[in-house]
Amino acid sequence: MSTYTLSTTVAAPFEPTLTRVREQLGEVGFGVITEIDMAATMKAKLGVDIAPQVILGACRPGLAHEAMQADPSIAAMLPCNVVVRAAGDDATVVETFDPAFMADLAGDALRSVAADAGERLAALLAALAPGVGQDD
Amino acid sequence: MSTYTLSTTVAAPFEPTLTRVREQLGEVGFGVITEIDMAATMKAKLGVDIAPQVILGACRPGLAHEAMQADPSIAAMLPCNVVVRAAGDDATVVETFDPAFMADLAGDALRSVAADAGERLAALLAALAPGVGQDD
Repeated sequence: MSTYTLSTTVAAPFEPTLTRVREQLGEVGFGVITEIDMAATMKAKLGVDIAPQVILGACRPGLAHEAMQADPSIAAMLPCNVVVRAAGDDATVVETFDPAFMADLAGDALRSVAADAGERLAALLAALAPGVGQDD
Repeated sequence: MSTYTLSTTVAAPFEPTLTRVREQLGEVGFGVITEIDMAATMKAKLGVDIAPQVILGACRPGLAHEAMQADPSIAAMLPCNVVVRAAGDDATVVETFDPAFMADLAGDALRSVAADAGERLAALLAALAPGVGQDD
């Protein structure tokens, strides 16, 4: 958890949670345009073992376009990362960069775009851990 | 330009600048682990024409590992984006997320990692536009 992310903890192992996150991103209107297997990267490049962790780059092209028109620099924060990482064998953390935080950085022109993205990501987290509520 | 990025404007067209950015990222010790052609994405998904723009996801695994150990949430801001976008026919903007900004978000544990990354990216920008100085 942090001040700049939204996150939830799902009571399920890593792999099925990653599958559900992909599905739910589609449900809330985001495509996945990049994917980084951080555990594989750390193993290959450093020989270090970390818990399973994947960073999905989520993009809703209409929102990205609006955001870049409001502030071209916002591209430096796109796509919106959704991080899925194992927290033990039976729990998985799902954490996204908080679009509201982007709006704090980029100013009021981005407020409505960020609100739209934020509602979608909050719906994603709620769908993943129904009844549990978000960590924050 | 923004408060959360480092950027420079190169007096050269988009394509050769993109090639130089890839080369210089290697020189300063970053690998490119994701790449998004934003212009192609906007055209394909929205039918909208924007100026040529590519987002490179730059990663130095040792720094990423240190950063994630200091603050697991930092993964939501990785890899470090380097945006290359045309600004007319003979000028290209190169803009990166500012690692110092990540440290401001994540706290002092990230300060030395961010300083290392920031020096490398500043060297990249300086190499691209020698004698011109950065925009900021």
